[in-house]
Amino acid sequence: MRVFVTGVDGYLGWSLALHLAEAGHEVSGLDRYLRRDWVAEMGSQSATPIARMTARLEAFRDRFGRNLQFRRGDLCDYTCVKNCLKSFQPEAIVHLAEMPSAPYSMMDLEHCVFTHTNNLVGTLNLLHGMKEFCPDAHLVKLGTMGEYGTPNLDIPEGFFEIEYRGRKDVLPFPRQAGSWYHQTKVHDSNNDMFACRMWNLRSTDVMQGVVFGTRVDAMNDGDERLLTRFDFDQAFGTAINRFCAQAVIGHPLTPFGKGRQMRGFLPLRDSMQCLTLAIENPARAGEYRVFNQFDEVYNVFQLAEKVQRIGREFGLNVEIRALENPRKEKEEHYYNPDRRHLVDLGYRPTHDVEQELRTMFPDLLKYRNRIEARKEVLIPDIRWDGSRRKVNFLARSSATINQRPAAAVADALARE
Amino acid sequence: MRVFVTGVDGYLGWSLALHLAEAGHEVSGLDRYLRRDWVAEMGSQSATPIARMTARLEAFRDRFGRNLQFRRGDLCDYTCVKNCLKSFQPEAIVHLAEMPSAPYSMMDLEHCVFTHTNNLVGTLNLLHGMKEFCPDAHLVKLGTMGEYGTPNLDIPEGFFEIEYRGRKDVLPFPRQAGSWYHQTKVHDSNNDMFACRMWNLRSTDVMQGVVFGTRVDAMNDGDERLLTRFDFDQAFGTAINRFCAQAVIGHPLTPFGKGRQMRGFLPLRDSMQCLTLAIENPARAGEYRVFNQFDEVYNVFQLAEKVQRIGREFGLNVEIRALENPRKEKEEHYYNPDRRHLVDLGYRPTHDVEQELRTMFPDLLKYRNRIEARKEVLIPDIRWDGSRRKVNFLARSSATINQRPAAAVADALARE
Repeated sequence: MRVFVTGVDGYLGWSLALHLAEAGHEVSGLDRYLRRDWVAEMGSQSATPIARMTARLEAFRDRFGRNLQFRRGDLCDYTCVKNCLKSFQPEAIVHLAEMPSAPYSMMDLEHCVFTHTNNLVGTLNLLHGMKEFCPDAHLVKLGTMGEYGTPNLDIPEGFFEIEYRGRKDVLPFPRQAGSWYHQTKVHDSNNDMFACRMWNLRSTDVMQGVVFGTRVDAMNDGDERLLTRFDFDQAFGTAINRFCAQAVIGHPLTPFGKGRQMRGFLPLRDSMQCLTLAIENPARAGEYRVFNQFDEVYNVFQLAEKVQRIGREFGLNVEIRALENPRKEKEEHYYNPDRRHLVDLGYRPTHDVEQELRTMFPDLLKYRNRIEARKEVLIPDIRWDGSRRKVNFLARSSATINQRPAAAVADALARE
Repeated sequence: MRVFVTGVDGYLGWSLALHLAEAGHEVSGLDRYLRRDWVAEMGSQSATPIARMTARLEAFRDRFGRNLQFRRGDLCDYTCVKNCLKSFQPEAIVHLAEMPSAPYSMMDLEHCVFTHTNNLVGTLNLLHGMKEFCPDAHLVKLGTMGEYGTPNLDIPEGFFEIEYRGRKDVLPFPRQAGSWYHQTKVHDSNNDMFACRMWNLRSTDVMQGVVFGTRVDAMNDGDERLLTRFDFDQAFGTAINRFCAQAVIGHPLTPFGKGRQMRGFLPLRDSMQCLTLAIENPARAGEYRVFNQFDEVYNVFQLAEKVQRIGREFGLNVEIRALENPRKEKEEHYYNPDRRHLVDLGYRPTHDVEQELRTMFPDLLKYRNRIEARKEVLIPDIRWDGSRRKVNFLARSSATINQRPAAAVADALARE
């Protein structure tokens, strides 16, 4: 299948290009390298040494014996979108070109507005371009589980049938996003749904959980040029990845607040499996469907404990110390999202968190000096109230806290 | 109270400035005159001859003996927003500065993207400016009843308590907007709600029905400089206003399709009453509340019949001829929205549709030449599929159709 990946230079984008090529698909891609700039703006770098795109493309050709059709360009430039769609003639488009960081979007007005224009205009250009040049192509758009927030209800996949005052309808499930970034994801989901309804486009909107991991199988042959990026800074590093980066340099693992925020997680290799299932089983013309994409649900403290446990297998002395929460979010809540659609299409989780962690530690230990060199980015200073002040540790030793029963932890934290 | 009105040169904005001044409030305002440009772009003009802002401000001073503090500027320019908030120090802000037309937003990619950036960036600037300079001010933001779409359920005011799989929560009511413009209103409502939750701002989000009318009481002294605009083109003219403009020049009234689309309506004077009630009864700090603002619910054919009936009182021979529907929307549906909140605050409808129509006809008959001069804008050519072709009349004589019972009309239209 001809698959066009926007944001092909990113963490997911590059991994997907390799995964799809290995599965025999023909891959084209677009990127403007903004992710590299954003991480540099945060004072950080990828833990893995990522090659420049020219070297990546060479390595792709060496590995698969064919080219990845690549353009450097901006999804916010419609001429660029038009040229890509006309020349690549994609059957599927995977949209991974949004600015993906909650803290980055919460820094100030400028970053909030940039996140809105970059994400919304890019998606609108893509939808209009599809209508004009490839109305039968299938858009696989990356949303986030964070769009739903943490309602006190089960979370269905995008839509639910409700009864209200004696009448019934199937409606979009209400969204309650927790950052400007998450808000833009909600806006784009709404726009995607509208375009499918108006113009008979087809789309799968993937509400993805938190992805973690250092590699997919296509990177296993030792060619460093094929590695994908791995971020650990406060803005672009996500929970498990940040904990692992902290563990390998002997930095305490830093859950926020009570650490009872629950989220869905899945390994990078499973994210690729799921996206590929969506691509290979396209939505019908006019259909807008939503897949919740994650494997396991944990709270952040449980994850820190897993990282601690597996870190010890690698001889690392890992401490857990909770930080003041820079975000405004519920630290304890109900959480029970559905995830049937991908399982029905054949999704079979490969590695559970602990198993995947065992593949991550050797990768990261190899590059611990690159993390050590930027360790100041591990403590956040971007706060949801718009100020910039490094957050404080909540307790002198939360290794101790961590061993107390859960209720006692909450009480102790409330007192501190 | 010090009230800052963004979009003060518009249909609602100018009316509100006069209405608030008459009620003793101190009014400041911002505008970039974009509405004048947009209507010109549609090849049209206001039926009422509207004065330039300099003349409007003089008339305001003559009438009320004090100044309206006005700035020409753009809400998308944060420096401008900052300067306004710092110098006006508003206690209430009424945000009427969004691009308000569904067809305008559906013309092409350029207009879709403009609508998004203009509306979203303006609102984000305002929210950030409030946080920085007047966190206690009350934002009254104009949304639209169109955000809800036409679900097969009663429509509550913004939020509803639901039970789903045995659990309960109070959640935002799902939105299903019907144009890019309506989508931007949904996005802005989400952003407004989020800012109140994060930053403890206070806001009333007004889901307004379709407003019609030529005047408020403050315009009754015969000073033409005080008139507000009245649009009748396909993009900026709304249902009743367009029908009246058609009636006074002997043009058939043109409902779209079956004409059974139901909407809530209220006269301009009642819209001003409601907005003033919201201003004078502010939301609490951190509160984001939603008011559904309309008086009566009718379908479009019923409105056409009312305009026809009142037109005859003025000696006009008014025909009704349905047009092919340029939009993609449900033409028959359930519709039962709540409107308790404003009534609880004291909203008492003044004029019903027919009574208000009797004040509109004399106003419009006076300016019939200005409508006659632009009558080609009365038949739409902007279609929801993105093409531009004038729509056709559906039946040779729908005056006849109109007299058949409803079911027969639907059948006849389906055949034609």
